[in-house]
Formats: sequence, structure tokens, C-alpha cells
Amino acid sequence: MLPQPTVEQALAAFTLPEKLGFGRISAPVMFSATYEKGEWSEGRLIPFGPIELMPNARSIQFAESVFEGMKAYRVPPARPHLFRPLDNAGRFARSATRVGMPAVPESLFLAGLDAVASACADFIPTRSGSSLYLRPTLFSTEGGYDVVNSGAFRFLVLASPSEPYSSGPMRVRIERDDVRAARGGVGAAKTGGNYAAAMRATTRAVADGCTVSLWLDPQQRQTIEELSGMNIFAVIDGEIHTPVLSDSILPGITRDSVLRLAAHSGYRTVERPMPIAELLADIAANRCSELFASGTAAIINPIESLLDADGRQHRPGASAVALRLRQSLLDIQEGRAQDPFGWIHRL
Amino acid sequence: MLPQPTVEQALAAFTLPEKLGFGRISAPVMFSATYEKGEWSEGRLIPFGPIELMPNARSIQFAESVFEGMKAYRVPPARPHLFRPLDNAGRFARSATRVGMPAVPESLFLAGLDAVASACADFIPTRSGSSLYLRPTLFSTEGGYDVVNSGAFRFLVLASPSEPYSSGPMRVRIERDDVRAARGGVGAAKTGGNYAAAMRATTRAVADGCTVSLWLDPQQRQTIEELSGMNIFAVIDGEIHTPVLSDSILPGITRDSVLRLAAHSGYRTVERPMPIAELLADIAANRCSELFASGTAAIINPIESLLDADGRQHRPGASAVALRLRQSLLDIQEGRAQDPFGWIHRL
Ligand SMILES: Cc1ncc(COP(=O)(O)O)c(C=O)c1O
Ligand SMILES: Cc1ncc(COP(=O)(O)O)c(C=O)c1O
Repeated sequence: MLPQPTVEQALAAFTLPEKLGFGRISAPVMFSATYEKGEWSEGRLIPFGPIELMPNARSIQFAESVFEGMKAYRVPPARPHLFRPLDNAGRFARSATRVGMPAVPESLFLAGLDAVASACADFIPTRSGSSLYLRPTLFSTEGGYDVVNSGAFRFLVLASPSEPYSSGPMRVRIERDDVRAARGGVGAAKTGGNYAAAMRATTRAVADGCTVSLWLDPQQRQTIEELSGMNIFAVIDGEIHTPVLSDSILPGITRDSVLRLAAHSGYRTVERPMPIAELLADIAANRCSELFASGTAAIINPIESLLDADGRQHRPGASAVALRLRQSLLDIQEGRAQDPFGWIHRL
Repeated sequence: MLPQPTVEQALAAFTLPEKLGFGRISAPVMFSATYEKGEWSEGRLIPFGPIELMPNARSIQFAESVFEGMKAYRVPPARPHLFRPLDNAGRFARSATRVGMPAVPESLFLAGLDAVASACADFIPTRSGSSLYLRPTLFSTEGGYDVVNSGAFRFLVLASPSEPYSSGPMRVRIERDDVRAARGGVGAAKTGGNYAAAMRATTRAVADGCTVSLWLDPQQRQTIEELSGMNIFAVIDGEIHTPVLSDSILPGITRDSVLRLAAHSGYRTVERPMPIAELLADIAANRCSELFASGTAAIINPIESLLDADGRQHRPGASAVALRLRQSLLDIQEGRAQDPFGWIHRL
């Protein structure tokens, strides 16, 4: 055993830094439960710190791990609240099932979120756009080199007081070579392998002055799918278009919120296969006035340019719809506006 | 720091069990090196045991990890030797590069293998087919939730005195639904995500009385690719056929050895796209007389049946070619036969 502080000591020793960034500051505590012989332990708060893991664990060897990303908000004097946590619970369970892992029961998932968000209530930044990023993670702790599922797992809820992921409009690089996820594969699951597959492309994007890659479909590389950690939208002839879901696209909860908010605000929304060639033509013809990204981390963020492999930049120019939707979403998430959708979950 | 035995104590306390299985018994020591600020540490032997890892490390969160699988053999009174380790070193480096990680230098890779195999020399089982399975593993130790590569890594060489992976002919289930790896994806890299993607299919295979899945191509699901941890061969009209490599197939070192050994033994070898429908027809027509799998763990192993999703069993019947090639390969690996290919690497 490691000499560790108690939960109380860890909480008492923590002060919220001035500069947060996204995911850089770890909250002083985390929730931990274990799965063995078909049963979940109760779970409890422990100080955040290194964990012990066998080096032959299938989480490291075979990427037997899934995760979620969500946020707790604080609007003093109220207790913290969560945004659509049951949707995250459901996706977490579906991700686990896709890679053959046991699903974390919804009650345990919520207990973990509640424990962490409540203990960290004082550290949840209240500035608009900031929040406590919560990272439920499920991974194998059992060693073994045969390609079969493990019998022992650990469920952690990590947390990080955070600012929004990106500040300012994003530059996106169209990835024409690498593919993130196969049809029939695990792209719709939040499992580590999809992200490892995306890293070489990110490196290329960064080298070209962008921040993230736009993925094309794995079959033809002709229709757009999503960004490495965000879904994508285009405003075309005043309508809000986004790629239709498939098993190679992560079904973003923010994506769903955007579609519902936009419809609620009177926009026509369209989910359809979106050929990249057509999108670039629509930008050139000024039919596509703006592009934006959605995700828990990024919230809703304008995309200022698409860089193609041939070096050409495509700039839709506007960002008014994205910024309006972003404000509407934040107003609900941060408790300033009515919540007609039942998205807010009080702890 | 954990209270740990010294390397000498760990080695002294270890006795080789009677029953080994494959990868079940961990050798008492492992090699460990770290990468930080662009530099590799020297690396050293440490006792095998749990490691400390930050729970937000990208190895757990984003499957930023790659591995190798290879074997050390002992033929007393000689020192242990390795089989084609430079090929593993090269593939390890290519796997790392594919997911944007720094490659482990060949010299450090070999130093790790040498250190572990030499320290464990007395525990390398000498029965034919048994060996010391070596598992070089490279993974991120840096925390972070943005989809970019880490800057801090750990390189371990784990080891396990092992029997062959499978005993007796295998039953294989044709996976018609799930896809293991995309074209343009990471299937040709030995990175964890490919294995997580395969686990649900393994569970189905096991439920149907098989041990492993046969993967079809991700585009059409019409041509055969490989098994979850082995390549596949068919003997058709006396020739040895195997799927041509693509970026969704792991280029097995045993696969390459089979092709070269078979050609050396006078067989015609054919690498080509292999439609599953044609293969099943060839089995029915007795043109395909046998199927077998190749891999470091499985060596060369006959496949007795292919189970299709419609419940039909396809049984090629024979296994003479597989068993003959297996014996020739083992004779070289275990030092009983001349090594015309320069595959044996003395430590
Ligand atoms: C690949 C990918 N796409 C899209 C999203 C957006 O999903 P959500 O809106 O649920 O955060 C994420 C997660 O943040 C993601 O990892
Ligand atoms: C997916 C996959 N295919 C094939 C093989 C066979 O490769 P090798 O012969 O180098 O062991 C392996 C590894 O053992 C593998 O993991």
C-alpha cells in the first residue's frame, strides 16, 4: 500500500489554481469501485493519485477500457448539478458491452458522480463555460494474453476543474489517409482504441497549424463523420446539417442536445450522409455559411477553417448560429434558463 | 514506493510450476525503461509486480500502448536464444509510429530481451513447444484528456514461461458482423485497440464451442483476413495459400516464417485476396484439404473446423502439411535443425 493522505486531508490540501485549462488540474479525490466474480463492490471516495495495476493487465495490453466525459456545474448557492447523466450512463454501458465488458450499473455510476461532485463542490469553477469535468473510466485489472475478456475490473470517476476545451474558432484538418474506426468496429463506443487510432492524424493536424482532424467514412473516405473528440455541424441554406449516425461515429450527447435545441429554436435540422466534396462546394458557393463542433469538452465551438490535404483552406466565414446555440446551451447547463428538456439532474 | 523484494530475492523465490499454460505464470522479473523529454533511460531489471500509473494516463484512457510477442528458447547446455528478434523490434517500432508514439531503439529493445531471458534462463522450460514467452510493452504514463500523443512512456519487457497457446486442432468461428480493423486504421499495428475490438466476437465464438474468430475484410466482409491473434493458411490443391497483407492485417512473423519454410520445402506458396465463399466451396469440393493458424503463441496449429453464422460447419479434414511445417519450424526454433534463414539470435 502507498502512504496516502485521507480523503479529508486531500480535500483540505487542495486549492483551485487561477489558470485551469481543460483536464490539466486533477481534483484531489476520485471514486473507486471494483468488479470481481460477477459482483460490484460498493465503491468509495479515495484520494486522487497513482493506482497500482499489474503490467500484464488487459487494460494496458488489449485496451480493455471504456470511459465517459461529462460535467458538473455549480450555481451558488445551489448544490452542484449534472447535465444528462443518464445519457452518459447509458452510453457507458453500451460502450462496455461493445467490447465485451460488464456494464457499470446506473446506480453505481450515479453514486460515483454524486460522491465526486459533492466532495469537490467548492472547487467547481463558476465562471461561465467552466465546470467540473467528470471522467468515469472502466478498465480491466486482470492479467492475461489471450484475446478474451477479463473477469476483474475497476471503475473510477476522475474529475478535473476545467475551462472549455478550446478557446476561439478552431482550424480543422481533413484527414484523407488514416481512418479512425471501421464500420462494424468500435467507433460508436467510447473506448480507448479509437483515440489511439486518431493520434498520428492529430500530430499531422498540429504540424499544419490545426488542432484536430476531420474523419471521413471508412468505406469510401467520401462522407464526413466527426472530429477526434467532437461531432460536426454545418449551417447550409440556414438549416443545421450533421452527419447521420453510424456505428463508426460516436453518438455525442452534445450533438443530440444541439439537434433538439436547434429544432426548439426554429431551425430545420437535417441528419444525412454528408459528402466532403459537396460540403467544400457549398462553402465555396456560400451556401454553407458556418461550421461548428459539439462535445462535452468543447461545448459548441465555431470552426473557422477546413484545411485539405492539397493545402487548400476552406473558410465558411460566419459563426453566429454556433454562438447563439452555444449561449442557449450554456444558459440551460448553467441554470440561467428554463430547462424544457429535463436535462438538468440535481444531486 | 512499494516494499518490493530485490531482483535477486525475486529470482531466488521463484520455482517453475508443473503446469504452465500460456501466459498464466509470470516470470519473477521484468525489464523497465522510461521515456521523458525525448530521452530513454537506460533501463534495468526489477521484480515483476504491480506498477504505479496515474489513472488519467493516456495508456488507460486512450489506449496509447503497443506490444510485441516473442519467445526465448533454451537448449541446454547453451545459453537461451531468441527467434527473429530484429523482426519483432522492427514491428514494435512500426506499431509505435502508427499510433504516434516514439519507437523504442533496437538496442534498448534487445537489451531488455537479453536481460530478462538471461535472468530467467533457469526457468525457460525445455520441453518441445514450451519456451519463455516475452512481452515487450510500451505505454503512455502521462495524464491528459486531449487526443494528442503523450510525452512520457514506459517500456517493459514482461516474461512468462509457457506451453503452446493451443493444444489440439482449433475450431474457428467466422465473424460475419463485427469488424476488427479498418483499412486505413491500425490493424497492422500491434496496439491494444485491435484486441479490445475483437473481444465481443471471441465471446460469441466461445459460446458456440469455438476458440477464436476469423475476421473478414472491413470493406466488403468477403475476403478472409486473420484470426484475433494468429494468421491463417489454407492448403489448396497442394499449394499453401494465405491472405495477402493489407493495413488491416497484422504481418505475423510466424506467417512470414511459414511462407519461407514452405517454399524451402518445395511447396508453392500463394499470397492473394481469399474470398470466404470460395474457400468454403474449396473445402466442400475437397480442393482445400487443410487449414491452419500461425502465430508466436500458437506456433503452427491445425484448424479442424470453420463454423459459419448460419450454423454450418466446414471441415477440411487433413492436417499433415500443418504438422510437418510445425515440426520443421520447431526444429529450427529449438536448435535441432540447421537454420538456413539466420533466424536464431544467440544472447
Ligand atoms: C470521438 C468523439 N466524438 C464526439 C464526442 C462528443 O460527445 P459528447 O457530446 O457526448 O461529449 C466525443 C466526446 O466528447 C468523442 O470522443
Ligand atoms: C492479430 C494477430 N495476428 C497475427 C499474429 C501472429 O503474429 P506473429 O507470428 O508475429 O506472432 C498475432 C500475434 O501473435 C496477432 O496478434
